Parts: sequence; structure tokens; C-alpha cells
Amino acid sequence: MAELRNRQVVLNNYVVGFPKESDMSIVEGTITLKLPEGSSDLLLKNLYLSCDPYMRFLMTKEDNPLGIGAYKLYSALTGNGVSKVVESGDPDYKKGDLVCAWTRWEEYSLIPSSQIRFKIEHTDLPLSYYSGVLGMPGLSAYAGFFEVGSPKKGDNVFVSAASGAVGQLVGQFAKLKGCMLLEVLEAKIRYFPEGIDIYFENVGGKTLDAVLPNMRLHGRIPICGMISQYNLTQPEGVTNLAHLIFKRVKMEGFLVSEFFHLFPKFLDFVMPLIREGKVVYVEDIVEGLENGPAALVGLYSGRNVGKQVVVVARE
Amino acid sequence: MAELRNRQVVLNNYVVGFPKESDMSIVEGTITLKLPEGSSDLLLKNLYLSCDPYMRFLMTKEDNPLGIGAYKLYSALTGNGVSKVVESGDPDYKKGDLVCAWTRWEEYSLIPSSQIRFKIEHTDLPLSYYSGVLGMPGLSAYAGFFEVGSPKKGDNVFVSAASGAVGQLVGQFAKLKGCMLLEVLEAKIRYFPEGIDIYFENVGGKTLDAVLPNMRLHGRIPICGMISQYNLTQPEGVTNLAHLIFKRVKMEGFLVSEFFHLFPKFLDFVMPLIREGKVVYVEDIVEGLENGPAALVGLYSGRNVGKQVVVVARE
Repeated sequence: MAELRNRQVVLNNYVVGFPKESDMSIVEGTITLKLPEGSSDLLLKNLYLSCDPYMRFLMTKEDNPLGIGAYKLYSALTGNGVSKVVESGDPDYKKGDLVCAWTRWEEYSLIPSSQIRFKIEHTDLPLSYYSGVLGMPGLSAYAGFFEVGSPKKGDNVFVSAASGAVGQLVGQFAKLKGCMLLEVLEAKIRYFPEGIDIYFENVGGKTLDAVLPNMRLHGRIPICGMISQYNLTQPEGVTNLAHLIFKRVKMEGFLVSEFFHLFPKFLDFVMPLIREGKVVYVEDIVEGLENGPAALVGLYSGRNVGKQVVVVARE
Repeated sequence: MAELRNRQVVLNNYVVGFPKESDMSIVEGTITLKLPEGSSDLLLKNLYLSCDPYMRFLMTKEDNPLGIGAYKLYSALTGNGVSKVVESGDPDYKKGDLVCAWTRWEEYSLIPSSQIRFKIEHTDLPLSYYSGVLGMPGLSAYAGFFEVGSPKKGDNVFVSAASGAVGQLVGQFAKLKGCMLLEVLEAKIRYFPEGIDIYFENVGGKTLDAVLPNMRLHGRIPICGMISQYNLTQPEGVTNLAHLIFKRVKMEGFLVSEFFHLFPKFLDFVMPLIREGKVVYVEDIVEGLENGPAALVGLYSGRNVGKQVVVVARE
């Protein structure tokens, strides 16, 4: 069988501070679209790759705090993606199946079937959504807001990084729940006269510090991320934590992996809302693997509007 | 009726930074131990006054974050105390009753009966304990540890300000619950190999920052206070908050006032333990109202060992 071109995005060096496009390269390899005899692995054609803030942690050599191994130098980045099965050694999957997987930043990937997150059953919605609203960012917004945030009708909700993959959904879920969504310039956070019941935290640092004195009694702060801090060798100090005492606020970190059991329930909730237009999802789509490094780097400067996706192939 | 001397501790000026003894004065007034005709107030002889970290907030002119009015200049400080009823205009109290009250730093106080927290029923234990283990600090330790901290047998517990009014009790409650109490020099916090399930937070700032990377998965941080920060015009920045995400930690502020309903249950729990010697309580007792300012100021430099009490009169 003929070899095919298989371009990859590889890491050139471990990153200190903000990542730059030049920390990555596009390299061109080849792949044979045939599984070794007796293999139970899968060959995937990658369609959409997800750019996610946590990826910065894997660009650092030291043991990262997520407990996932760092990227290997000169190897393809790993990440969440939407892919099509080309060959399958696992009877649960067959050629042509669409899957969400922990895949690699390359055109074709050979992965063990344990890295498949789930098979895509509903294809009436854009496939790219499975890297966003119908994937980990969607579940993060759902679990973080409803499970960790414990929202009540009428609560004042503030979301940082409100145009991002997760934040845009939290805002819409809050409105659906009958909450008041506070939409202000972050520079004006200090002037919320009514106070905040739920602060959905994606940013950290100075933003958190500005929000804390504005929390209401018994407020909740689900912490989904602190993207402003990930590239700083010395994180910004948060000085207003004593307001957690004065207002009896609960601040709680979470990872989406703890809520995978809610995924079917979440899809049942969100898919009808998307079909009815009651939830919309903004994507920032970049065409071509070769534009992946710029897209990924852009996350940390807030360049993206909506969920950042890289299209490797449309089908 | 003759007038009696009534010395008071008054505030000379609003405080910036660390309070000094010279921010307070002892002034000598007089009082007539007779209630006005038809009054429903009480006349108290103050026996023990409690030195508590929150009092620093009331020494600042601006609205303080606790929502309690600031001290008035040249007036007696207010605070928790153990007092004896000298005259009562309220049928619920009679001369000779011992009470815990929101009283004033003076020898005798005229207060409305609404400021009585409770009547002391059990006098087989030292009366001063009602400003500590049998008062608000005791309830803070109990509610903060058992209600906010959700301890499980075998949990690793770390307490900052572990010799203070609240901290010494949390440590003992933790051992009674079957938890492992981590007793280390704070300088060595970074080297806890086993990790921390519950950090009972009394100190804040750098101590919190050193603890955060040592938290275990699903750890809890009840925040009782952050005494290291109360005198700083610019609080220390806490930089390690992202560990709340990595370890899915819940950090929650509380005030004892939210748990007053548990007070009878708490006394039923703790009084037998004290009588059996299973809970001991260390007090740092200063004799004489005139030594009150130094005792209060000493809280913020960590001078006290155990609960800081000022004896105004023994009976």
C-alpha cells in the first residue's frame, strides 16, 4: 500500500513564558494507511483539532500539575479532536465512524482505542461542534455552572473570558436558568453595584482580584481555568481573598474529567437547545494544519473570538 | 447612690497598619450602679474580655467589610466578654447572673439585653473559658472544622495559627475525629510529602500560598481568618490559586455568626470532653484592664500563646 503524506505540528523546544509560533514547526512525514497484522489500534483521519488553554501546561518540561505527560520534543502535539476512522482493529469501531478522540496534531494518527472518547452519533450538527459545545468545553460549562455553581433563578452571574469556548456557553446557560448576566467591561468590575452571586472563573489573577470585593453573601466561584496566569513565570498575586470570609464565598476548582458521567445527560440537554436556536455557538475556525501553531498561540493573547478550532480536513 | 470609678480602654485615633499600644488610652470615668427608672437595659460588671483578631477591622474608620460599625474615637472599645449582672431591667436576667455579652472594654457597662449572647449555666469550668473554648472561638473551630471542612477519619489536617484561640481546638478536634494532624514549622510547609486534605486557614497570605501546592485531591480549605493580612495596607498576593483547579480544592470562608444555632449542640459536645481532660484549652491571661491594649496588639505579632484574655475582675 502506498505511503501518504502526513504533516505534523511538533514542538521544537520547551516553552518559558508566552508560547510563540516559532516554538512549533510543521514537519512532513509519511504514513501507510494499514494497521499492523493483529493490531487492536485505530487509524484515524483527523478532521478538527481543538485549541485548549490547558495545552500550555504540556509545553513545559517539568512535571505539569495536571498529571499528564509533557509533549515530547519533535513529536506531534496531542489534544482533543474530531476524527474519522480509516482502519479499525477494534470491533467496536468500523471504517467511516466519526469519533471524538485524544489524538495528535497531524493528518493521520495511529492510536489505541482507549483514546477514543466517544463515537459521534448525531451528525445533523456541525462536526466541529464536537470539539466545542458538544465536547469537553461544553461539558465544562455545564458541569461548572450547574453542578459547582449551584445557580438559582435571579442570581447575578459574571463570566470572565465570556467569548471563549466555555464562557460563551456559561452566559447562555445562565440566561436559560433565569439568572441576570452581568456583561461589562472588565475594567469596570469594581463598579458592580448589585454584587455577584456566581463568578465563573476562567481568567484568574487581576480579574479575580477585581471581582472578589464585588461578591455577594454566599457567592460561589467555580474555577474552570486561570488562563491569564499560565504563561507567567511569576503568577499575579491575588490580594482580596479575605472577602471570601466577609461574604462567606465558596471558591472551588474543577476539572471536566470528573464529570464525564454527565456527558449523555448534557448532550440530551444541549442538543435540542442548539437545534431550536436557543443556544448558539461561536467558533473561530482556522483552515489548515499549517495554521495550527498561530491559532494555538492566539488563545493566550485573547486573539480568538469563540471556540478556536483548526480544520485539518473537512471530511 | 455613690458613683464608682469606671476605667475604660478607648481608641485615640483610627489605625493604619499594625495597631500600637499608643493607639489606645486608659481613661477613668465614673458610673452610678443604678438603672434609670423604667429601663429594660442591664448593668454589667465585666470580668473577662476577649481579644479577637477581627477587632482590628473596627479600628479603621472606613466602613469595614464585616458590616459592624467602627469604634468611636474616645469611646470604650466593644467586644465579647464574660460579665456579671449588677442590675437588670429585663425579667429574663437577675442580679448575680453570669452572661456572655457583646460588651465594652470598661469595668462596668450599661447595655441593652439584646447584646447578651447567652446566660452561663455551667460554672464548674473556668469562667474565662466562655470567651474562648466555650464561646465564639470554640464554636468557630467546631463549625469550621466539622461543618465546612467535612473531615473524614484518616484525613491529613493542617492548621495555621495552631496555638491560637481557634487553632488549638481544631487540632484537638481533628485528632478526636481520627485525622492525622500535621505539625510542622511553617517554613517547611513546602515539604509535606503526603499532602493535605484539610487546611484550616487562620493566617492567609504567604502561609496560604505555601500550603496550596501541597493540597491533596478534593481538599478543603475552611477560611476562619487571615490574621497576617489585617494590618497590611497592601495585602500579600497569593500566587498559587491555580492549584485549586489541579487538585479540585474547595476553599470556603465562614463567619461564626452563621452557626449560632449549633451552639447548644457544640456545648453538649465539648463540655464533657473538657471535664474528662480529652480537650484542653490554653489561655494567655493578662491581669488588669490597663494591660488590655498591649494584649490586644500582641495578637497581631503572634505574641500570645493560647487564647488571649484580659481579666478585668475575678468576680
